[in-house]
Amino acid sequence: MVVAGQASKRSLYTSSMHANLYPATQQVSIDLGERSYPIIIGAGLLGDTATYQNLPAASTALIVSNAVVAPLYADALRNALQPHYQRVLQVALPDGEVHKDWPTLQLIFDALLENGCDRKTVLFALGGGVVGDMTGFAAACYMRGVPFVQVPTTLLAQVDSSVGGKTAINHPLGKNMVGAFYQPERVICDLNVLQTLPPRELSAGLAEIIKYGPIADMAFFDWIEANMDALLARTPEALVYAIRRSCEIKAAVVGQDERETGLRAILNFGHTFGHAIESGLGYGQWLHGEGVGCGMVMAASLSQKLGLVDAAFVGRLRTLVQRAGLPVVGARLAPGDNAGRYLELMRVDKKAEAGEIRFVVIDAPGRASVRSAPDAMVREVIDAASEVA
Amino acid sequence: MVVAGQASKRSLYTSSMHANLYPATQQVSIDLGERSYPIIIGAGLLGDTATYQNLPAASTALIVSNAVVAPLYADALRNALQPHYQRVLQVALPDGEVHKDWPTLQLIFDALLENGCDRKTVLFALGGGVVGDMTGFAAACYMRGVPFVQVPTTLLAQVDSSVGGKTAINHPLGKNMVGAFYQPERVICDLNVLQTLPPRELSAGLAEIIKYGPIADMAFFDWIEANMDALLARTPEALVYAIRRSCEIKAAVVGQDERETGLRAILNFGHTFGHAIESGLGYGQWLHGEGVGCGMVMAASLSQKLGLVDAAFVGRLRTLVQRAGLPVVGARLAPGDNAGRYLELMRVDKKAEAGEIRFVVIDAPGRASVRSAPDAMVREVIDAASEVA
Repeated sequence: MVVAGQASKRSLYTSSMHANLYPATQQVSIDLGERSYPIIIGAGLLGDTATYQNLPAASTALIVSNAVVAPLYADALRNALQPHYQRVLQVALPDGEVHKDWPTLQLIFDALLENGCDRKTVLFALGGGVVGDMTGFAAACYMRGVPFVQVPTTLLAQVDSSVGGKTAINHPLGKNMVGAFYQPERVICDLNVLQTLPPRELSAGLAEIIKYGPIADMAFFDWIEANMDALLARTPEALVYAIRRSCEIKAAVVGQDERETGLRAILNFGHTFGHAIESGLGYGQWLHGEGVGCGMVMAASLSQKLGLVDAAFVGRLRTLVQRAGLPVVGARLAPGDNAGRYLELMRVDKKAEAGEIRFVVIDAPGRASVRSAPDAMVREVIDAASEVA
Repeated sequence: MVVAGQASKRSLYTSSMHANLYPATQQVSIDLGERSYPIIIGAGLLGDTATYQNLPAASTALIVSNAVVAPLYADALRNALQPHYQRVLQVALPDGEVHKDWPTLQLIFDALLENGCDRKTVLFALGGGVVGDMTGFAAACYMRGVPFVQVPTTLLAQVDSSVGGKTAINHPLGKNMVGAFYQPERVICDLNVLQTLPPRELSAGLAEIIKYGPIADMAFFDWIEANMDALLARTPEALVYAIRRSCEIKAAVVGQDERETGLRAILNFGHTFGHAIESGLGYGQWLHGEGVGCGMVMAASLSQKLGLVDAAFVGRLRTLVQRAGLPVVGARLAPGDNAGRYLELMRVDKKAEAGEIRFVVIDAPGRASVRSAPDAMVREVIDAASEVA
């Protein structure tokens, strides 16, 4: 699939507004009819009052964050929101995937109801993917739907979980099993917040950026290969392009298939294997992006075994994933039949149908589809790409 | 507002299919674009395999019911579904509004995940409004959305909660505070199930039927007055017309305002006062329909105080509510400042904005709107219509 550039020529911002910041603020439009929204990418946006102009009229803002991010950025966001709302409230969730559950979601509803918040309330998700997914789901459900804004503070959330309207919490028996498709009003990607990101989190975000190459755009893959050092050095020019291009590709895919009835599933490249590792080890051991990084290598190997791509392509992907600081060897999930445990975990994936695992495979570099594969072949892939006992 | 008849000329059923049953099966179409669905009203539908033809392709059906309804009808529904699905699973929830909460909702997710249900699963809500609301919300959230079918077994659920896509659970601080707008694939109103309904439940359903007169159609109100005895005697001909006309009116309103941004709020006539009684006494003391019955009399009195309708209209409504076997005097919610307690409870209503309570009032018989009113006036209404200390 070739995805044409989607960056909007119109911008909410005048060019002078951030004239002192470099690179210039950019905007990607997510085109979903009446649920359309812009992703705004630039330096210093989070603390700028102008960033939050023209949101739905509301009397109250609720900032939802976590114990790690709130001390860094909540005050700046609060100050920027204050001119727009009568009240700016705040709730901090416990940090981490392990808390992406109902009791934590309930903290958001408690904060809303204890403060008498009505439908004229806007939620602001300030944090990574977990905060974004939970805030979005809370917004989808509170009084059957209030508006929300994403202010993602990790690279992964900026390029992936803030785009496309997937919100959810985990169930003890599966990841993201309870959720909604619900679109934000606006997504604010502030490049400055990436400067304080732990290296492991940066790498996790790069996994989702790399992903867009094999599934949609090998020219972008070439660019990532050429600019990996700049990305790891957090050069703003490199980051802004990587974020914009990732969002453009995701926007194009989501715009064609908002509710994941078909094409959208290709965005899960690497996720079937990755989720198995994440849930098999217990959420929080591997970061989501780490699972995706390793999962992409496994899915590429499976594509090779299916005769779709050659070994050179798989090697090229493995090298890039490794350069990004990501694992390329799967964790061992069971002492005995390790591959069997992977298969068992993958069968509860949301893409599975009637117990048949559906894998996103690379049909050719830059083009993906969803297919099933014989268990024996999947076992070979896992055995070859996992830690030995 | 005058609502034209909306009964579809097309039917899923041939006239011969239920030729031995009287009255003939009727159908109301809820027109919401790609989320449109039919309400099918007739005798003996629940246990008829033909009722469930042409639903979305799926391998598994999950019947969600409760401890009271399941023993009466679950076997019949299961037998009717069996030819359409590889597996027909079942989960019984504890009965009652007091269990309309997250732990109970979780029982549905547990049943789905423990049985490895994927997106090719259809949920069937077999029960009253609580089962319908919870099953609908579970369907909205499970894997971000699976199809569901309403098989309402109370009159109230048939004329109200099965129509319009409102799903929700309660929060300790408010009724229906967490939910979604999510439309069923089909609604099956079987007249036969109403024959076993306890009299109190029948009356509760009549409250929502009466409601459609003052807000939309006084000719229907005339009809209800003329046919109240037949409705209380559960005459199928009377029931089928009352259900169809109620669904038609609701369909017309919901069709114009699916997400309750304006007009749809008139369907909450009587609900602001009614919810206060329900939550003030603790859910389950008064039935929802009982709260609505009494709440309509209070809201009509408020309309009179606002100079919109005359005393004769209020008296006529009070008489009909009373004939239906419903309370017309509000419960006492506090030993001291009873009206103050009502006001406090009504301020957390979803329609409230910035602490101002929004009441559905009757502008003229057959026409409603949403307005605020001075606290002192609301207090007069409550004091005049509540039990004395």
